[in-house]
Amino acid sequence: MTRVAILGATGYTALELTKILLRHPQAEIVAVTSRQEGQPPLAMIHPSLSGRTDLLLEDLSPAEVAARAECVFSCLPHGVSATLVPALLEAGARVVDFSADYRLGDPGVFASWYNQKHPDPGRLGKVPYGLPELFRDEIADAPLVANPGCYPTSVILALSPLLKAGLIEPGGIIVDAKTGVSGAGRTPKLTTHYPECNESVSAYNLGRHRHTPEMDYILRKASGKQVGVVFSPHLVPMDRGILSTIYSRPVGEIGEEQVIATLREFYADEPFVRVVDHLPSTKDSSGTNFCDMTARIVGGLVLTISCVDNLLKGASGAAVQNFNVMYGYPETMALL
Amino acid sequence: MTRVAILGATGYTALELTKILLRHPQAEIVAVTSRQEGQPPLAMIHPSLSGRTDLLLEDLSPAEVAARAECVFSCLPHGVSATLVPALLEAGARVVDFSADYRLGDPGVFASWYNQKHPDPGRLGKVPYGLPELFRDEIADAPLVANPGCYPTSVILALSPLLKAGLIEPGGIIVDAKTGVSGAGRTPKLTTHYPECNESVSAYNLGRHRHTPEMDYILRKASGKQVGVVFSPHLVPMDRGILSTIYSRPVGEIGEEQVIATLREFYADEPFVRVVDHLPSTKDSSGTNFCDMTARIVGGLVLTISCVDNLLKGASGAAVQNFNVMYGYPETMALL
Amino acid sequence: MTRVAILGATGYTALELTKILLRHPQAEIVAVTSRQEGQPPLAMIHPSLSGRTDLLLEDLSPAEVAARAECVFSCLPHGVSATLVPALLEAGARVVDFSADYRLGDPGVFASWYNQKHPDPGRLGKVPYGLPELFRDEIADAPLVANPGCYPTSVILALSPLLKAGLIEPGGIIVDAKTGVSGAGRTPKLTTHYPECNESVSAYNLGRHRHTPEMDYILRKASGKQVGVVFSPHLVPMDRGILSTIYSRPVGEIGEEQVIATLREFYADEPFVRVVDHLPSTKDSSGTNFCDMTARIVGGLVLTISCVDNLLKGASGAAVQNFNVMYGYPETMALL
Amino acid sequence: MTRVAILGATGYTALELTKILLRHPQAEIVAVTSRQEGQPPLAMIHPSLSGRTDLLLEDLSPAEVAARAECVFSCLPHGVSATLVPALLEAGARVVDFSADYRLGDPGVFASWYNQKHPDPGRLGKVPYGLPELFRDEIADAPLVANPGCYPTSVILALSPLLKAGLIEPGGIIVDAKTGVSGAGRTPKLTTHYPECNESVSAYNLGRHRHTPEMDYILRKASGKQVGVVFSPHLVPMDRGILSTIYSRPVGEIGEEQVIATLREFYADEPFVRVVDHLPSTKDSSGTNFCDMTARIVGGLVLTISCVDNLLKGASGAAVQNFNVMYGYPETMALL
Repeated sequence: MTRVAILGATGYTALELTKILLRHPQAEIVAVTSRQEGQPPLAMIHPSLSGRTDLLLEDLSPAEVAARAECVFSCLPHGVSATLVPALLEAGARVVDFSADYRLGDPGVFASWYNQKHPDPGRLGKVPYGLPELFRDEIADAPLVANPGCYPTSVILALSPLLKAGLIEPGGIIVDAKTGVSGAGRTPKLTTHYPECNESVSAYNLGRHRHTPEMDYILRKASGKQVGVVFSPHLVPMDRGILSTIYSRPVGEIGEEQVIATLREFYADEPFVRVVDHLPSTKDSSGTNFCDMTARIVGGLVLTISCVDNLLKGASGAAVQNFNVMYGYPETMALL
Repeated sequence: MTRVAILGATGYTALELTKILLRHPQAEIVAVTSRQEGQPPLAMIHPSLSGRTDLLLEDLSPAEVAARAECVFSCLPHGVSATLVPALLEAGARVVDFSADYRLGDPGVFASWYNQKHPDPGRLGKVPYGLPELFRDEIADAPLVANPGCYPTSVILALSPLLKAGLIEPGGIIVDAKTGVSGAGRTPKLTTHYPECNESVSAYNLGRHRHTPEMDYILRKASGKQVGVVFSPHLVPMDRGILSTIYSRPVGEIGEEQVIATLREFYADEPFVRVVDHLPSTKDSSGTNFCDMTARIVGGLVLTISCVDNLLKGASGAAVQNFNVMYGYPETMALL
Repeated sequence: MTRVAILGATGYTALELTKILLRHPQAEIVAVTSRQEGQPPLAMIHPSLSGRTDLLLEDLSPAEVAARAECVFSCLPHGVSATLVPALLEAGARVVDFSADYRLGDPGVFASWYNQKHPDPGRLGKVPYGLPELFRDEIADAPLVANPGCYPTSVILALSPLLKAGLIEPGGIIVDAKTGVSGAGRTPKLTTHYPECNESVSAYNLGRHRHTPEMDYILRKASGKQVGVVFSPHLVPMDRGILSTIYSRPVGEIGEEQVIATLREFYADEPFVRVVDHLPSTKDSSGTNFCDMTARIVGGLVLTISCVDNLLKGASGAAVQNFNVMYGYPETMALL
Repeated sequence: MTRVAILGATGYTALELTKILLRHPQAEIVAVTSRQEGQPPLAMIHPSLSGRTDLLLEDLSPAEVAARAECVFSCLPHGVSATLVPALLEAGARVVDFSADYRLGDPGVFASWYNQKHPDPGRLGKVPYGLPELFRDEIADAPLVANPGCYPTSVILALSPLLKAGLIEPGGIIVDAKTGVSGAGRTPKLTTHYPECNESVSAYNLGRHRHTPEMDYILRKASGKQVGVVFSPHLVPMDRGILSTIYSRPVGEIGEEQVIATLREFYADEPFVRVVDHLPSTKDSSGTNFCDMTARIVGGLVLTISCVDNLLKGASGAAVQNFNVMYGYPETMALL
């Protein structure tokens, strides 16, 4: 049994994380934090937790958190998380960080995409990226794991086997991704106001979405090749789910079966990657920790289609998967 | 040709109103107002108006508005509208007021439901309620018309003929209404944040929705009977549309055909009320100025089902219908 | 460990049931049946089961099913289930029947609502209704359990405590219910074709929905009082969830707190009923086996609001809850 | 005033066409056809037309249709339309054909994509493609116009100016398009069953969607260059709207402003193309005949984003625009 805490427990990823941890036989939630005044019950913020937990939202220092919990899930915003993580680590806690703070390798790249100086630059490049399918060994022993971004999860899992096998060119990759609205978080904004985004599709942040350098960096780490993706995210009127349609150029002549077989072989022993023959819908993996993928050859290009639930395999499910790896629990525990 | 102005032009009702007026052959929009800084183009706030209009949002006084426009559509909030309407009227403009400020008959009732002293109590009870189907003659000559609320429109149109015909008891009426999310306005809130209200139905404001006294008051005006409805509004995940399911007790033994025939006869000459035999869907009247209705007898009760588009027959379509009546244009102009 | 089979495994309730049973530590699915030709994999019909199960759809006789399985979940249509259940029982299997075939007490009532002679009239009135909250003891020992309808679950759980406590009149109850589209099943029809029902609300089957006699009969069984509900179902554009808004007349003067307290006390020890103070959204219980409820007094009426996920507490979740009761497993097993 | 007929009037494009024509001051609908038995009222098939029209669905021969109508809108399926069009033309009617039958230039290409021999091969290559923005003069005098497909409209309008100006390479173009569900028609299917496609995104028909050769052929006609697009359509949970994200390679170094300026100049006098600076949402053009577009340079590629309402500018709006051009009416008549 491991005592865990959740920092920044009012958002959607924290809600999903709480639900998973409540049914995890080896985790006990001992603290949930927020700067909300007056220690309201967590179930008052998230009515779907009514009757499930008596936890109160507390405003705790890193030391107080680390005194209670062995493992801390930080759902704090980018830039904030890295101001608290060092103290948590020093106090002996292990940390799964949902923010982007430890996903990149270079403080300068961080600064240019996140418009701020990195609060803990010394650790950059040394923190394992929380995709057990690619970095399981590093995660197992790590005091700190950088939980992946939702879009990068769908893209990196789909491309890494093909890049490593040398089946596709590392340059000129286009990622056209479609996400549900929960990916934008729980703070009301005009763009996520129901009558604005319902019954509508739109592209956003073309050429400047912060997941772009994350994909480039991790794909290079995973494949050893210099990758530069063109990334086009789109907002789609649904709660959850990401579908990434990925266009790349084959190296030489390859067939659809070969691409699918390469993916299937690579993930043969992975419990959460499903290489399928049909074109997956986001609904197939919605509410699960699965990543569904397949491939097609169209007009001389390799099309890879990859789906994840942005809140689960793209966030909280992956976090618990990492937690299971870190503490030696069966990797699928509480996730099937 | 009539020169018109729109006050408070950034919301959804103002957007729909603008679209209708842009295709109205006898209306020219000469001013759109807002307290936004810097006079941004209206089409910047509402991208669907791109290329349709060069109007700028201006912060104008009532006198400035009345100097330009003959007819003013006020889409200002409750309590605010009635602080400006007197000056508009004095300056010679005629006004269609979208707020609730002139819908009720009694300042005390207003104060108790809207939690404020009425800014212009002397006019209460003297302003025609903008349902031409019931108050056409009064509207034709009025300097000021109180444009109806969306829920009340669906309910008053469905009940008035039955109450006037003495077919149903005025007491014990239950209105269970379902609305799309645009009824909640354009200001982002947690309750209308997409991931909160999508894929969900909920009741809200039970027993304290402000449209309750409006229904009671106008139904009494229309039928001469003391009515007291139990009103239960529900939020439904769709952009537009209201469906009101209304339960009342019959006076004596009556049949379904008789109820439908009474409605049909009452609205025989009305261009915007469609009494149908089938159970209407909100989609049938969505995007139109129609009110669709039918009736059933179930378990000894009279069920009346009534649908309107909350932004059109429930707001901006009705406003232009009133405008047409006020200025002697064909009532359906720009509305079919 | 109990060996289980699912009859009629291609629909939505069977899909949800399969997902729950796959994570149930004491259930092993040994057969899934359908009249589909060629024994396709279940995961081909339901792609969300890809990689989860190798089960093939088989066309098996009751004897063949009973030879493999101790407990049979029948997801067959109304009228069909009762033609096979007797053989399953005779062959020694216990059965949880999702159809309406054993929910009513009288073959004549069945015939008049379901337009067919009952295939197994002798058992009617002797089969426990699968709401453990009301009939746990009967369920525990029963060879056959009638799994409740989705609407009746939400209504019976909300009304039974109030009727038993004598707080509300058994006559004149109105149930205005709103359901997601999955309640209509998996067979494509025009009414559930996306562009028809999306962005639309409509009432349907007013006065003739088959869940009406089920509510009347079970409420009488639960409370000892003759009940006759007016039931108005509505279709709402969402996948899942039912919200029932129930109007009843109080017996004497009662307060909101008293009603809520009565509900809370009645369900104090129930793991799947959450009596809340706020107005619940269907989303709070969506994807769970919970029934959320609260009450309000409005205009002298008692309003009870009750939400369930129509596919879980309204179908497959309840079925597993019954299974747990029948086999002595912890009632929440695989359901939290 | 022009007498018009609609063949195959039960689908969604015919419904939208009917609504536009009912408000068209120079069109009179004199016949609507279908093979439905018993001449049901059109408004019974489409309840949103209740009270709008008394037209009955008739099963008429081409000669009967041409005897009544000067202009015929054929909403018949691919392959069927071209079996009737010759007779209509011979009988003196002019035709706007919604099917794909006359969009391509080569019977062999038609046969290979539509799996049938073309019924009227002699006309292929001689029928103007109904995009007035590109082929206005040909349309004006044509007896027969091939109304464009929905996806091709969004793509051809966005690419033609750039190809003609030589700003982008004609090879290696990728079209990643997202459509609402009404594009799949009104016949219920599992893929468009609400609980299947709601809350889900999926790619479909990768590499084999029939709009592919249409884009290639018309782009070549419009630009004089050999074009071959990789086309990836996606189904998105909304009623209407198409957003095409188009990736092409620039010829030399070009800037975003230059691309947008080229589009803007090309469409300067076009009433239905809006070149905007912001990223358009499908909702901005939903319910209108507008095509909204903009461009971005990302990672050395030119991204063109183009939105249309698939049922209007992508079908019925375009048809009336063509009708207006053919009969010399103002091109925007009934369309703003």
